[in-house]
Amino acid sequence: MSQIYDRVALIGLGLIASSLYWAFKRDGLVGEVTGYARSGETRDIAREIGLCDRICDSAAEAVEGADLVVLCVPVGAMDAVAREIAPALKAGATVTDVGSVKRAVIDAVHPHLPDTVHFVPSHPLAGTEHSGPRSGFAELFEGRWFLIVPVEGTDVAVVDQLDTLWQAIGSKTARMDADHHDLVLAVTSHAPHLIAYTMVGVADDLSRVTDSEVINYSAAGFRDFTRIAASDPTMWRDVFLNNKDATLEILGRFTEELFALQRAIRTEDGDMLHDYFTRTRGIRRGIVEAGQDTDAPDFGRTKT
Amino acid sequence: MSQIYDRVALIGLGLIASSLYWAFKRDGLVGEVTGYARSGETRDIAREIGLCDRICDSAAEAVEGADLVVLCVPVGAMDAVAREIAPALKAGATVTDVGSVKRAVIDAVHPHLPDTVHFVPSHPLAGTEHSGPRSGFAELFEGRWFLIVPVEGTDVAVVDQLDTLWQAIGSKTARMDADHHDLVLAVTSHAPHLIAYTMVGVADDLSRVTDSEVINYSAAGFRDFTRIAASDPTMWRDVFLNNKDATLEILGRFTEELFALQRAIRTEDGDMLHDYFTRTRGIRRGIVEAGQDTDAPDFGRTKT
Repeated sequence: MSQIYDRVALIGLGLIASSLYWAFKRDGLVGEVTGYARSGETRDIAREIGLCDRICDSAAEAVEGADLVVLCVPVGAMDAVAREIAPALKAGATVTDVGSVKRAVIDAVHPHLPDTVHFVPSHPLAGTEHSGPRSGFAELFEGRWFLIVPVEGTDVAVVDQLDTLWQAIGSKTARMDADHHDLVLAVTSHAPHLIAYTMVGVADDLSRVTDSEVINYSAAGFRDFTRIAASDPTMWRDVFLNNKDATLEILGRFTEELFALQRAIRTEDGDMLHDYFTRTRGIRRGIVEAGQDTDAPDFGRTKT
Repeated sequence: MSQIYDRVALIGLGLIASSLYWAFKRDGLVGEVTGYARSGETRDIAREIGLCDRICDSAAEAVEGADLVVLCVPVGAMDAVAREIAPALKAGATVTDVGSVKRAVIDAVHPHLPDTVHFVPSHPLAGTEHSGPRSGFAELFEGRWFLIVPVEGTDVAVVDQLDTLWQAIGSKTARMDADHHDLVLAVTSHAPHLIAYTMVGVADDLSRVTDSEVINYSAAGFRDFTRIAASDPTMWRDVFLNNKDATLEILGRFTEELFALQRAIRTEDGDMLHDYFTRTRGIRRGIVEAGQDTDAPDFGRTKT
């Protein structure tokens, strides 16, 4: 395949950026890739393991001459990074990001960018509970969705070029509006993560049930929560702070529903419970049929 | 290996019973295995696929002459089954069960059994979201815990013999008191299941987020909930109705904790969120180190 971009800059060198690098290089999809991470230790590790063709000591240096800049920092760091790189961006460059919320990222990044560059936010629905520069692998995106959330007025050819890159690393792509994205993700990702974090925290607090018991007997359901609740703390703090309204709305609905089920248990309404559990089973079938739980690597299964 | 029991009866022919049968036969652990299911259709399927050496048309017939009787019916059906088989049990036989709650099963079964038989309740922490006579496979128990909850005064040799069988099919075993079992399982299994059912129900209700979006974009966390929420509705209805107090207690703690995290999001207390998420990450490490998420087959991964 011919190169889709000549020069690419990865800002932030965690799970997503390192996976992108290995995927780009495996298939020769882009030319030189520069990288930058705020932490000197992360930059040292990147140099040691050959992550990126060139590691720079500032974000501005990394983006110089880049045709595509991918912001792979936590959502809360987007504003500062955008300010820093803006003066160094090449005219005609495309800037994208991989943040899990989109409205807040657009608000944080777009105002700082010069009119001469294109901002095309995106979001890969791919991850594991591991993080950092050593956690990436080229197959992370295979069969996974890469959502593209273009800002109004963006040149279609620019969006198409980025779409081509995400498809070339194995992703399926879809385009949607930022607010809709944030609501869908509140349902499919943000609320489930907060709930998993909560349940794991409760288990940790219960002194009557010893740690080793919770851990040993986790295969009965709890284990699947711990996988989710092991995700990167900084990333998830920023997700909740930046998709606050949609997440709180879904959590409100969740609590309402949980109370209804608790009440059914308390009043021993077995029919209500049985009907509810039968309905939820159908959704699972849809996910398997849609191929979202047969592709490897699966969430959290890859590197353990 | 020499046979651990001569004659075994499996009452109820779902995921656990069918997996037990294939595991017993693979390794020649027992002699003749009889089977019974209430549904004629299930008995026909069992005969068709060679599940059990002999399928009987009543539970009483199936247990005649059996040295070990394994009750594999939903918890809510235990009382009726115990009444039915009691007169037909062989003196000196061991009766066990595989129910997910133990106090309620002991209360339902023990009073009906003659003094000449031994009742040794047990509970395998193994499962998938599939159910029915076709869903079993011999490897289900490998590396998984099989908890044994002896009633007071049971002959140690009788418990040891059952323990040997569960270890022979690949399980790790542990013994504990019924009330402690029910509390531990409320934390590691029952509350997580109810929470997963709830979240999947909420997603299903949200008409603004279309079905196909929830399904397509499920890999970001929601998918792991749907796997749990696809478990057998009858079994889970009975679990909640029969471990009501412990489940409601844990759900109460869960709600309290969820409200604290919701408040942290609303007030934008990023430090609280980050600290919380860092703590929960540590529990995950313990589970991986304890080997509870590396053994195959994993919950829900086996047959999809």
